[in-house]
Amino acid sequence: MFQSFEVASRPEQAAPRITQLRTQMRETGLDAFLVPRADAHQGEYVADCDARLSWLTGFTGSAGSAAILHDRAALFVDGRYRVQVRSQCDAEVFDFIDWPETTVAAWFKGTEAEKIGFDPWLHTVTEVRKLREDLTPVGKTLVASPNLVDRIWTDRPARPEAPVSAQPIELTGRSSTEKVDALCEDIKAAGADAHVMTLPDSISWLLNIRGADIAHNPVVQAFAVVHANGTIALFDAPEKYASLGPDPRITIAPRSEFSNYLKGLSGKVLISPTDAPHAVLSLMRDGEAAEIIEGDDPCALPKACKTQAEIAGSREAHLRDGAAMVEFLAWLASNDPDGLTEIDVVKKLEGFRAATNHLKDISFETIAGAGPNGAIVHYRVSEDSNRALKEGELLLVDSGGQYVDGTTDITRTVALGDVAGDARRAFTAVLQGMIALSTARFPRGVSGAHLDSLARAPLWRMGRDYDHGTGHGVGAYLSVHEGPQRISRISQLPLQEGMILSNEPGYYRTGEYGIRIENLITVRAAPPIGDGDDRDHLDFETLTFVPIDRSLILADELAPWERDWLDDYHQEVWEKIAPRVSDAAKEWLRQAVAPL
Amino acid sequence: MFQSFEVASRPEQAAPRITQLRTQMRETGLDAFLVPRADAHQGEYVADCDARLSWLTGFTGSAGSAAILHDRAALFVDGRYRVQVRSQCDAEVFDFIDWPETTVAAWFKGTEAEKIGFDPWLHTVTEVRKLREDLTPVGKTLVASPNLVDRIWTDRPARPEAPVSAQPIELTGRSSTEKVDALCEDIKAAGADAHVMTLPDSISWLLNIRGADIAHNPVVQAFAVVHANGTIALFDAPEKYASLGPDPRITIAPRSEFSNYLKGLSGKVLISPTDAPHAVLSLMRDGEAAEIIEGDDPCALPKACKTQAEIAGSREAHLRDGAAMVEFLAWLASNDPDGLTEIDVVKKLEGFRAATNHLKDISFETIAGAGPNGAIVHYRVSEDSNRALKEGELLLVDSGGQYVDGTTDITRTVALGDVAGDARRAFTAVLQGMIALSTARFPRGVSGAHLDSLARAPLWRMGRDYDHGTGHGVGAYLSVHEGPQRISRISQLPLQEGMILSNEPGYYRTGEYGIRIENLITVRAAPPIGDGDDRDHLDFETLTFVPIDRSLILADELAPWERDWLDDYHQEVWEKIAPRVSDAAKEWLRQAVAPL
Repeated sequence: MFQSFEVASRPEQAAPRITQLRTQMRETGLDAFLVPRADAHQGEYVADCDARLSWLTGFTGSAGSAAILHDRAALFVDGRYRVQVRSQCDAEVFDFIDWPETTVAAWFKGTEAEKIGFDPWLHTVTEVRKLREDLTPVGKTLVASPNLVDRIWTDRPARPEAPVSAQPIELTGRSSTEKVDALCEDIKAAGADAHVMTLPDSISWLLNIRGADIAHNPVVQAFAVVHANGTIALFDAPEKYASLGPDPRITIAPRSEFSNYLKGLSGKVLISPTDAPHAVLSLMRDGEAAEIIEGDDPCALPKACKTQAEIAGSREAHLRDGAAMVEFLAWLASNDPDGLTEIDVVKKLEGFRAATNHLKDISFETIAGAGPNGAIVHYRVSEDSNRALKEGELLLVDSGGQYVDGTTDITRTVALGDVAGDARRAFTAVLQGMIALSTARFPRGVSGAHLDSLARAPLWRMGRDYDHGTGHGVGAYLSVHEGPQRISRISQLPLQEGMILSNEPGYYRTGEYGIRIENLITVRAAPPIGDGDDRDHLDFETLTFVPIDRSLILADELAPWERDWLDDYHQEVWEKIAPRVSDAAKEWLRQAVAPL
Repeated sequence: MFQSFEVASRPEQAAPRITQLRTQMRETGLDAFLVPRADAHQGEYVADCDARLSWLTGFTGSAGSAAILHDRAALFVDGRYRVQVRSQCDAEVFDFIDWPETTVAAWFKGTEAEKIGFDPWLHTVTEVRKLREDLTPVGKTLVASPNLVDRIWTDRPARPEAPVSAQPIELTGRSSTEKVDALCEDIKAAGADAHVMTLPDSISWLLNIRGADIAHNPVVQAFAVVHANGTIALFDAPEKYASLGPDPRITIAPRSEFSNYLKGLSGKVLISPTDAPHAVLSLMRDGEAAEIIEGDDPCALPKACKTQAEIAGSREAHLRDGAAMVEFLAWLASNDPDGLTEIDVVKKLEGFRAATNHLKDISFETIAGAGPNGAIVHYRVSEDSNRALKEGELLLVDSGGQYVDGTTDITRTVALGDVAGDARRAFTAVLQGMIALSTARFPRGVSGAHLDSLARAPLWRMGRDYDHGTGHGVGAYLSVHEGPQRISRISQLPLQEGMILSNEPGYYRTGEYGIRIENLITVRAAPPIGDGDDRDHLDFETLTFVPIDRSLILADELAPWERDWLDDYHQEVWEKIAPRVSDAAKEWLRQAVAPL
C-alpha cells in the first residue's frame, strides 16, 4: 500500500520537544522560532527528514506552520485542517490560529516577541519579504538562524537517496539537451548568466529524470545552477545517479556544497522569488554575484505545455487507469455497501491499480468520503475516522495513479442504492458545469479565470458554489498539482496547447454529502467545425474515460447538447475501456454507459 | 428627427483645406500636425465646433485621427470604419491606415517628419506619454501647438450654449451636496487638495445637472476644479446656468479662464491621466501646483453604482420605451416588408418614441440593418446605403431613448417572414448566451471578465464568436456608453450593486445577416433561493421588456431552464407592457409572448 491509515499523531510528544526547542532559542538569543511545513523545495509533500512541523507538533497536514515563543506557541492552519489540528495537537501547548484569515505577522503583533528566528532555507524570498514588510513597522526583527529543530531532533531520518531513473525520449518527446538549450535562451533573454533552480519538478523535467525521494511525486529532490552556456551544476547525492550515463554538461556535487557554490557565483543570476529559498538570495548577496535578477521560473510554462509524446503517454495511462477504475466501480456495485468501509474502498482501489502492473505510486492519498465525510473537501480516511458505507448515501472517491507514461487524477461520486432528490439536483448541476468546461471552445488568449464561471454557473443559479478551484495543472509523470496553468477565478494566464488540467467542479453539503466529478483534460487546437467561422480556437480533449453515475442525473434538467455530450462520452468509454476489463466489469460497464 | 440620413461627406473639400493647413505648419515650423476626432472632453460625440477631423478630411466616424505631413497625409481608422473612410475621403490626399493594428507612432517611424505638432487639449496625458515614449527613441519630437485647424476654419460654428437644467433629487436619489462631500473625502484620501474634472458626464452627475451641448448625450460640456473644502470652480458660459438658482459653493467663469485658473492652482492636485487633456498637466506644471497626483476619476465608480431612485427611474423609462418598441414591432409585423426601407424603419421607430411625449433625444443614432447590412456592427443608414427590407431576411434594430428618468438601449433582431435554418441556429445560440448572462448569479468579486464567457460559450461551441464586448455600462439619463463597468474579457472590475449594463451578444455573417439581442440589466443583491447556500451573491435584474422573436428560436435546442426563462420573461413583458400599448399592438403582443 502506498497509503497508511494509522493515526500517527501523538499529541503528548509535543510538550517536551517544545521545551527543548525553547532551550535552543534561549541559547541563540531568539524570542521566537518559526517552523513551517515546507522544506527547501516548496513542494506539496516533504521527505521524512524534512517533516519538522509534524515531528515537533504532531500536526501532519500538508500546509501550515508553527510559531514557538517562550511563553506560548501557535499553530497556523487553513480551513481544511481546523478539525484535524485539534485532534492531532496538544491544546495545552498550542493556540490554534485560523490562517490565512489571521496572518503570522498579524498574530505576532499581539506578542512580546522581538527577535524572530527563521531557517532561511524553508521560506521563500517572497515570503520573507512580506513577513519583514509587516513585522518591521511594529518593531520586530526577522533573524535568519540555523534550524533549531534539527539541533534537538536527534533521531532525524536520513535524507532519501532513491535512485534516479532516466525518463526516455519516447515519453518526454523532447531531449534534455533541447530543453536546456531553450532554457539557456530564456536565461539570456532575462539578461542573466545563470539560473538557480530549487523546484524538484522543474529540475526533473529539464533533465528528463525521475526519482522517488518523496511520496506520490516521482521527482528528484535536488538543487541546480544552469549556466547560460549550457553547463549545469547539480547538487544532490551523486550515488543516486549511478545508473545514468555521464553527461558532459552536468557536474554532480553533494547537496552540502550548494551554499558555497552560490556564494561563488559571479555575474547576473536569475532566481524565481516565489520559489527560491531566502537562503539562496542571501548567500549570493554575501558572495560574488554581480546582480540578482528576479523572474518567473522559466521552466514552468514549457513544462506545462506537454509534447505530443507526453499527451500520447497520458492518454495511454488514462485508459489503463480507467480500466482499473471500472474494475473498482464494478466491484463496488456488486457488493452490499453495508459490509464495507472507506478503508476497504481505498485498499481495493489501490489493488486494482496495482494489478495493472504499471503503478509506480498513487498520485496522492485517495480521498474516499462516504456520506457526510464526502463534504470534507480534503478528507483522508484514518483508522479513527473510517466510516461504514451506507445504502442511500453518496460515496466520493478522488484518486489517481503515477505511471511512467502519465499521472492520473479522477473523482467519481457514486450512489449507494437510491439517493434522495437534493443530492441528485446538486449532482446534475455539478455535471452540467463539468460538461460546460469539457465542451468549451474558446479563442486563444482566454485564461482559466474566463472559463471558471462556465463550470460554476449551473450551481450559482441554484444559489450554490464550491470553495475550491475548478482545475489545477497536472504533470506528465510528475506532480499531480502543477503550475502555472489553472482554471480558477484568479488565473490570468492564457491557456495554451498541451496544458493538462483537471476539470472538477463539486458541491458540498456539510454534515450531509459531498459531490465532485473530475476528469483530466488537455488543451488543443480546436478541430474545425462545419459551418463555423474561420477562427483560431482552442478546446479540450478529455483524457479520463470512466462512467459517470447515471442514477444521480436528473435527465430532464439537461440541455440537448449536454445529454449528447454525456451519451457520446459514455459510448467512448465503452469503446476504449471495455476491451481492457474483466468479463464481470464489462457486464457492469455495459449498463453504466447506456444512453440516458 | 434626432438623426439625419444625409450623405454629409464632400471628399473634394479636403485637398484645399489640407493645403491651407500645410501653410500654417510651415509658418509654425512643424513637419506634421495631428488631428484627432476627440475634443477636450474625450466623449463619444463632439460638438460641431469640435468636429475638426470631419471638417478637414470628410471622415465622420466616431473614432480615428489624421496625421498631416507636408508630402503626405494619413487617416487612422479602426475596423468599423474601413469601408466608410474610403467612401468619405479623397484617396489622392490620404493614405488609409488600419489602426490600431498600425499605431500612429509606428506609422511615423516610416516618415521623414521630425517635429510633430499636436493640440494638447485634444490628447490625454496618457496618450501623449505613450506617443512620446514611442517617438522619442526614433528621433521625433512631439511639440504642443495652438490648433492649426482652428486657424484656417474661418466659418467654425460657435460653441453650443444649450441651457442647463437641474436633475431633480427624486430622480438622482442623492443631492449634489452629498456627492460633493463624498468626492472631497476621496480627494483627501488621495492626498490631494483639489481635483480637476474634464469629463462632462462626471461633472453633470456630480452637480445633478443635464444639458444639450452635444447630440444624444444630455451632458453639460464644462470643466471644473473641485477643492477639498467643497468649493467648485466651474468653467463654462455662465448664461447657460441662468435657470438654476445660485449655489454658494460654485463659481462659474467662462471657459477661456480655465487655463489661467489651472496655472494658478497651488497645493496637490488630483487628475485622471486617461481622461485629462495633456494641457491640464502642462499648465499646472508651468504654474503654481506643488504636486500633481494621478489616479482614476473618483466620480466614475459612484456614478456607475446607481441609486435606488435612479434604478426606479430607469425601470419606468424602460417600460415607456418598451411600449414604443412594441408599437414599432407591431407596426413592422403589420406591413409588407418589401414596401419599406431601413430609413422608414428608423423614422417610424423614432416616431413611436417621440409619441411618448417624454423623449429628450435618442441615445445614439439608430442602427437598422437589413439583411447583409445587419452584419456591419456599427452600421448607420444613409441615403446612399439605404436598403429595402426583404421577405426572408433578418432586420437588426439597435436603438435607445434619452428620457429624463433613464437612458435606454435595446437591440432586437426580427425575421421578415420565414428565415433560413443557419440564421435560426445562430439566433438560438445568441439567445442562449443572452439568457446565460440574464440568469447569472455570482459571488461578490466576480468581474465582467469572468462573466463574458457565459454569453459566448454557446457560439464558441459552434466555432463562432462576435468581435465586440458583451456589455457596456449605461448612465442614468447620461451617456449610453459609460465606464468603468463592462462585461468584456478585459474588464477586471468587480461588478457592484446598482451598475447598469447592456447584455448584448451577437453573431455576424458578413454579406449575409447580423444578429444581436440586447437588454439592459442592473446588478443587485441576489434574492435568497430556497435550498441554496447562505452565500453573498449578486445577480441581474432585467430592465428591458420587449418580446424576442420566437420564430427565430429552435426551441428543441434550449435547456429546460432557458426555455423557462424565456417564457417567464415574455409573461412579464405582457404584464408590464400590454397596459401601455394600443389595441392593435396589444393584439400583436399577445401572440409574440405566447409560451414556446
